[in-house]
Amino acid sequence: MEFVDLQHAEPIEAWRANRANAWARPTSGICHGFVQANLVMLPQDDAFDFMRFAQRNPKPCPILEVTDAGDPEPKLTAPGADLRTDLPKYSVYREGALVEERSDVVDLWTDDMVAFLLGCSFSFEHLLLDAGLPIRHIDQGINGPVYLSNRECVPAGQFRGKLVVSMRPMPPDRVAEAVTITHAHPEVHGGPVHIGSPEKLGIDNVDEPDWGERVRMEPGDVPVFWACGVTPQQAAIEAKTELMITHSTGHMFVTGMRIDSE
Amino acid sequence: MEFVDLQHAEPIEAWRANRANAWARPTSGICHGFVQANLVMLPQDDAFDFMRFAQRNPKPCPILEVTDAGDPEPKLTAPGADLRTDLPKYSVYREGALVEERSDVVDLWTDDMVAFLLGCSFSFEHLLLDAGLPIRHIDQGINGPVYLSNRECVPAGQFRGKLVVSMRPMPPDRVAEAVTITHAHPEVHGGPVHIGSPEKLGIDNVDEPDWGERVRMEPGDVPVFWACGVTPQQAAIEAKTELMITHSTGHMFVTGMRIDSE
Repeated sequence: MEFVDLQHAEPIEAWRANRANAWARPTSGICHGFVQANLVMLPQDDAFDFMRFAQRNPKPCPILEVTDAGDPEPKLTAPGADLRTDLPKYSVYREGALVEERSDVVDLWTDDMVAFLLGCSFSFEHLLLDAGLPIRHIDQGINGPVYLSNRECVPAGQFRGKLVVSMRPMPPDRVAEAVTITHAHPEVHGGPVHIGSPEKLGIDNVDEPDWGERVRMEPGDVPVFWACGVTPQQAAIEAKTELMITHSTGHMFVTGMRIDSE
Repeated sequence: MEFVDLQHAEPIEAWRANRANAWARPTSGICHGFVQANLVMLPQDDAFDFMRFAQRNPKPCPILEVTDAGDPEPKLTAPGADLRTDLPKYSVYREGALVEERSDVVDLWTDDMVAFLLGCSFSFEHLLLDAGLPIRHIDQGINGPVYLSNRECVPAGQFRGKLVVSMRPMPPDRVAEAVTITHAHPEVHGGPVHIGSPEKLGIDNVDEPDWGERVRMEPGDVPVFWACGVTPQQAAIEAKTELMITHSTGHMFVTGMRIDSE
């Protein structure tokens, strides 16, 4: 099957391509202007505590939609999509351990499962680029650096852990714009959680990220840190829930929500 | 016991006064500058669906906090408070019927109960008044009018129903300000859901509200409608949940959150 070009595609084209397994790549840069989402699927018994965890930690876990148990269609944010098939790659965790990656999870989804869509920063990167701000890791063709910070999230039930943050270096004269633009979008993590001093977040060396890759900073660049959607996934891994299905890193779900709409 | 004056009090003074049953009146206008909240308490079995209902209908149901089952302290928005005692008046519903009003619910609260705090428009009325906008029902010393609209909420489990709206008449040259100010506060219902034509909301006669009282409009006034916190309570009444405890009308919970802070 031929691979398709999805950069300016409508979300429904991305869903169809994934359903047909015609797109197995990361989703950064596809369906320009649409909100992308982190996916977390959990059994109903764990899902209420997880929803409380997300509500208590809205910066890393902005809730876009929570499905009814057994319903794989996100009726509000992506009517017509099927969360069991419409992502390029899934990760399956059992008791906190990654056991498998696959292209669909039809046979794992039961009437007992609940799906969460949480906002992803791929979406606000569009906005920063549109405003002419540099995204160094995109320019350098790498996955941006992500760190485990020293800030505790507010726990809920068995879900607890430290805040995970992404970092984007910004020229000092563009930092204020980066704040203003992202602050207006709480649905995709909102404004930065910290600017300037990695050590205040417990990060000794910005060149040694816990996830992603080292980004090369330009002279004068200020490190700007945002809450990251890895946070809730990490909290669920540490909670060792019996079963958890997520998107695979970078292989997000594209919603039907436009980033600039309410 | 003497009644206290709480207009410029700190929330902790309101909690203490209520705990001692020294304040049995509505909370409109007390603790100036602090967010007031609707209270809904439900058994754990109903609570997850109710949380989904609130998340799917954020304008009428802005979630401020959801407690752990059995924990009556809203640790994030009002640390130190006790939701079983710190409101002036509670309503107890069984299978959708109001069976009792009381000054505390200590003996009804069990390890199985979950408390929801949802933002209340008393809070944004402070902001409108501070900006010099008229609130006609306050000037006229009445409870503002509230209507059942013709707009369906997004259902979740057994929770479903029509959107309930409050109406505040505004002089035409102040409507834009009323929109801008409230739009900036999604935690207390955000901007209006409709301006100008009651019939578009299925309201035939603004002088016959479903709750509250008829408000006298000044010449030229435009009716401005906001989503109302009666919506989720009404959805839970119609769902005929085995047990539901709420604040009594107008007798809200005062949180420790300042309205002008994030």
